Amino acid sequence: MQMQTLRQQVLDANLELVRRGLVLYTFGNASGIDREQNLIAIKPSGVPYEKMTVEDIVITDMNGSVVEGKLRPSSDLDTHIEIYRRFPDAGGVAHTHSEFATAWAQARQPIPCFGTTHADYFHGPVPVTDALTPEEIATDYEKNTGLAITRLFDRLGSPNVPAALVVGHAPFCWGATPAEAAHNAVILESVARMAYYTVAIAGESFPLPHALRDKHFLRKHGSQAYYGQLGDKK
Amino acid sequence: MQMQTLRQQVLDANLELVRRGLVLYTFGNASGIDREQNLIAIKPSGVPYEKMTVEDIVITDMNGSVVEGKLRPSSDLDTHIEIYRRFPDAGGVAHTHSEFATAWAQARQPIPCFGTTHADYFHGPVPVTDALTPEEIATDYEKNTGLAITRLFDRLGSPNVPAALVVGHAPFCWGATPAEAAHNAVILESVARMAYYTVAIAGESFPLPHALRDKHFLRKHGSQAYYGQLGDKK
Amino acid sequence: MQMQTLRQQVLDANLELVRRGLVLYTFGNASGIDREQNLIAIKPSGVPYEKMTVEDIVITDMNGSVVEGKLRPSSDLDTHIEIYRRFPDAGGVAHTHSEFATAWAQARQPIPCFGTTHADYFHGPVPVTDALTPEEIATDYEKNTGLAITRLFDRLGSPNVPAALVVGHAPFCWGATPAEAAHNAVILESVARMAYYTVAIAGESFPLPHALRDKHFLRKHGSQAYYGQLGDKK
Amino acid sequence: MQMQTLRQQVLDANLELVRRGLVLYTFGNASGIDREQNLIAIKPSGVPYEKMTVEDIVITDMNGSVVEGKLRPSSDLDTHIEIYRRFPDAGGVAHTHSEFATAWAQARQPIPCFGTTHADYFHGPVPVTDALTPEEIATDYEKNTGLAITRLFDRLGSPNVPAALVVGHAPFCWGATPAEAAHNAVILESVARMAYYTVAIAGESFPLPHALRDKHFLRKHGSQAYYGQLGDKK
Repeated sequence: MQMQTLRQQVLDANLELVRRGLVLYTFGNASGIDREQNLIAIKPSGVPYEKMTVEDIVITDMNGSVVEGKLRPSSDLDTHIEIYRRFPDAGGVAHTHSEFATAWAQARQPIPCFGTTHADYFHGPVPVTDALTPEEIATDYEKNTGLAITRLFDRLGSPNVPAALVVGHAPFCWGATPAEAAHNAVILESVARMAYYTVAIAGESFPLPHALRDKHFLRKHGSQAYYGQLGDKK
Repeated sequence: MQMQTLRQQVLDANLELVRRGLVLYTFGNASGIDREQNLIAIKPSGVPYEKMTVEDIVITDMNGSVVEGKLRPSSDLDTHIEIYRRFPDAGGVAHTHSEFATAWAQARQPIPCFGTTHADYFHGPVPVTDALTPEEIATDYEKNTGLAITRLFDRLGSPNVPAALVVGHAPFCWGATPAEAAHNAVILESVARMAYYTVAIAGESFPLPHALRDKHFLRKHGSQAYYGQLGDKK
Repeated sequence: MQMQTLRQQVLDANLELVRRGLVLYTFGNASGIDREQNLIAIKPSGVPYEKMTVEDIVITDMNGSVVEGKLRPSSDLDTHIEIYRRFPDAGGVAHTHSEFATAWAQARQPIPCFGTTHADYFHGPVPVTDALTPEEIATDYEKNTGLAITRLFDRLGSPNVPAALVVGHAPFCWGATPAEAAHNAVILESVARMAYYTVAIAGESFPLPHALRDKHFLRKHGSQAYYGQLGDKK
Repeated sequence: MQMQTLRQQVLDANLELVRRGLVLYTFGNASGIDREQNLIAIKPSGVPYEKMTVEDIVITDMNGSVVEGKLRPSSDLDTHIEIYRRFPDAGGVAHTHSEFATAWAQARQPIPCFGTTHADYFHGPVPVTDALTPEEIATDYEKNTGLAITRLFDRLGSPNVPAALVVGHAPFCWGATPAEAAHNAVILESVARMAYYTVAIAGESFPLPHALRDKHFLRKHGSQAYYGQLGDKK
């Protein structure tokens, strides 16, 4: 893939987060990866979205060193890198402080799988990391944030859930492309909002039965999927 | 009715769901029926609303076989069909994952009739189906979803309530036309939201007295209706 | 005042309710009164706001008989009339089903005066009426709704609060002009929303001290008011 | 600085509050200070935002006397003045009745520091003042409101938190410029909203560990900051 194409995809994914109301000011960032060249394209740090152009997107290697671009990459770059290392199918990563997903992260609770909307995208609860130690915060904080996510997925047996909540912080989502990562971030916020309302109404937690969860996840994902048009990429 | 007219009505109903903020991306679907020809017009599966044209609307028969159109119908088609079979006055069906109605469905609770806004449209609580069995989920899932709704209305004595919550899933609404089905979906979400707030404020449930419920429902529906202009279709 | 001027004011007040997100579809209605001629101008029943013109506004006398206009007046006209009878300073009335104010009405609770925003407009809690009897619902329902409001204010000693919640129904607001009535309806919804959040955070109720309530109310109203520009009408 | 420049900055900051949905009608006000001339530029009282021009911004001295401008300054001017006196680095002040921050003020509770979004801007909880006495309300109310804020910060040891909640009233924010004060007001509302959701989900309060709070605050502020582009003003 030409890096200019990836840059454009990453810009579009970042703007999708804005259009959907997931970010305030310069919060949030989306990136994409070229797996053949091992190059990452990511939003620059602290640049207003309304002024951002495709040339502002920064290209880095897998160590976070800038390869192309005049601006500093997002300060969360090292978290993105650890996600790319851990999930070889991830082609894009999106990070927001969307308010309901963030509230679950602040409340230190996974987002339960209460319904089919959730199960259409996330095959089980969206998990929350352990707290970082003071040492992990003091040195290589952003990298350690990524490692907290990857450790979490190791411990849980790698559920088919392209999102994690970083405790006390906010969600990270990923997907096959930058667009899909941003799409998952938008869905996550809707799912987080409905889970919030569900708990408030029910006063207790009714996880979706596994048969229904599996049905919905597999209706849209995998070889038996029958949602959408023939030939759509799942 | 010409199928082109029905197609246009169905497209308009689908777009109304978008305009009112009831659907995210390709979620949700509305359909209409021509009762003389027993043909259904329904949204195609997984097509973005902003690109959808009247030609994309799919025509099927009452068994769900495509009669006209190049695209696959919504994966929820079989649920719509069961609703049309059960409610002979239904000319349109709308399905969304609107967030508050969905939260009630996820909380496994009917939406109580707390006020006159609710009673203007729904003559009693909006009921919630029983859970489907694993067998019902495994085979003919969408048809069985429709049958869960029709069984529910059989059990409740067919209340004059053009909406149901499918447990753990989301609402289905219906009406005399596709436009009215979409309209009812919009009202349902507002009513679901107000019921949520009401429970949070009151800490307990005060159903609307039946005299007031009946007054409002009959003020807008039936032979004694006096809301709106003379000659308006109720 | 020329009736054409009043008609325009009433149309504008109705459209303000739409612009501020207080009404869905044809819900809600605002009216104005010419005190010299004892004529009321009110929104027609069930006409979409986007098509409403100044000619659609209906003129009635104080008995609710149409004097000018081809359309039926709002079905809530008789409630407006009772409010005009009871509050001689009222030049306009606005009725909405705005969601948080309605939720308080459905929860059968007055909106407490928790803060200065409330006290800037309402000199104490926004009260809620008693339930109507089945007889009051069966005959002259809309007139009896107005009488429930006026009885409530009689009982409470006529507080300086230009709004009431009709139990299980929704709010009615009034003001010196149709614009002010609509303005008060917008503020009421914001105040209702903040009161809802306040109770959820605090878990209990802290009414604003009377000294602060009086300070804010009198800073904007009455002979000692000093908010706004000199010469502004209070 | 030329006063015309400051006037423009103050107008922009006021309009930013509107654009971000923080103010209803004429609620809210932002100001800026020229520290060399000891002159304040502030929004006029009760003027609609849509009609406000740079010429309407009022210039006053530190005693609140109008130096330039034909309109009355915001009735909250004396609160702004006390904030400028107490915080010598403040170049702008913004006051809104934004709904979630106001709800915390009405609930008489500080906004806890639950997450990194909060810690990016506020180095600890956003505190709430003590209630004013009836005497403080009766005379020099707005000045006493400012003194309640400055007393609060004296008592707390001047935390690096550019915002305070006035009990039963609403938030005041400040910053190096009028734009930054308005920016902080927008962030405060988002943080207040997420804190509200967090408490509702968790049922109890998990303050962010201090190591993480400090990391995020210092990542954006002070000499070791590494967020944004080199040369950005922190």
